[in-house]
Amino acid sequence: MAHGRFITLEGGEGAGKSTQALLLANALEALGVPVLRTREPGGAPGAEALRDLLLSDRCAWSAPAETLLHFAARAEHVERTIKPALALGTWVVCDRFADSTMAYQGYGQGADRAMIADLTRMIGMVPDATFVLDVSAEVAAARLHGRGAAADRYEREGGAFHSRVAKGFRAIARADPGRCVLIDANRTEGEVHAEIMRALAGVIRETRRVETRTSRGTRGRRRSGASL
Amino acid sequence: MAHGRFITLEGGEGAGKSTQALLLANALEALGVPVLRTREPGGAPGAEALRDLLLSDRCAWSAPAETLLHFAARAEHVERTIKPALALGTWVVCDRFADSTMAYQGYGQGADRAMIADLTRMIGMVPDATFVLDVSAEVAAARLHGRGAAADRYEREGGAFHSRVAKGFRAIARADPGRCVLIDANRTEGEVHAEIMRALAGVIRETRRVETRTSRGTRGRRRSGASL
Repeated sequence: MAHGRFITLEGGEGAGKSTQALLLANALEALGVPVLRTREPGGAPGAEALRDLLLSDRCAWSAPAETLLHFAARAEHVERTIKPALALGTWVVCDRFADSTMAYQGYGQGADRAMIADLTRMIGMVPDATFVLDVSAEVAAARLHGRGAAADRYEREGGAFHSRVAKGFRAIARADPGRCVLIDANRTEGEVHAEIMRALAGVIRETRRVETRTSRGTRGRRRSGASL
Repeated sequence: MAHGRFITLEGGEGAGKSTQALLLANALEALGVPVLRTREPGGAPGAEALRDLLLSDRCAWSAPAETLLHFAARAEHVERTIKPALALGTWVVCDRFADSTMAYQGYGQGADRAMIADLTRMIGMVPDATFVLDVSAEVAAARLHGRGAAADRYEREGGAFHSRVAKGFRAIARADPGRCVLIDANRTEGEVHAEIMRALAGVIRETRRVETRTSRGTRGRRRSGASL
């Protein structure tokens, strides 16, 4: 059976990740692709319990503990949800993954970026494609205002924090152009979705080519099949 | 002000760690040393919330998540409790630390030991002295039976698990003789306490010597002053 693809959506608050994850999952399903839509922090029962601890005000975590807690939740998500789905040939569309920890904790809060990179390597699950949604502070604020839901701990941070996070996401996308596609998300939902679908077609062709080479005995890139 | 010392007690269930931690803390206080007695998992508010998640049956964690969760709790404990106490000159006597993760998760549950070693280096807090209490399965069982408290998730594991954990602790102690003292804990509380006090005197002389050298400009061992 074909192995599924692991696709992540990244970006700051109000970038439209959840909406785009839904549109992408629907489009893939319409193409007959089995899809699991999930999100971080969370995506598995234990990881959801950690989500509550991370996003509520119950604890004021030290920077290293907060980073490790995100990766504990991520490991649970990978082991219990993502790997089993991919092994069944299901595509996984995930709203936030390791890049969010680098952007929020590393760039936003000043946590140790080398430690975050080491933990990312430990987890060993690299997305086949990552769409980094980039929006201006004004567009993000308008979208968050329209949503009306109660803001979590990260959403309530100030503008300087969110500006560092946005800068972090752009730096991450620039540093890994083979995996990341930086998307101008100031446009309408439909325009952003269309660009994601166009970019995805290229990613899929590329990973299929790598798989074909790998099956002939040439070593391909270790992507979503990598494990801890 | 003199920096405090970080002393850990390690060993399997029924080895007598908590009793020895109390006896050691009392003895140090009687000598006029300010002491903080603490334990893992836990020792800080956020870490105690994680202790509940780790020791209860609420979640069946995957091996990598459980390891990361122990280190998240440890990072919080180090940042919020251990480092501030040491900086004030207080000695910290801690019931379990990183060696327990290596013994229980690494040796007992078969989690990735290289990952545990990497995470231990990330945390960057090395005890000045570790007393590893070694008991036979029979003595441990008798002590646990006498205690009568409800058993947690690790205590309820079978004999083969606890035998792997005990073997792990012995291997850890042998691999790091400069820090670890393996103590035969099959004897009476008083006998074990006396041996710990004797061994501690040597450790204190050794770390004082290192400090004196360091203050003269020679680089000493990075012990409890190390940071993330």
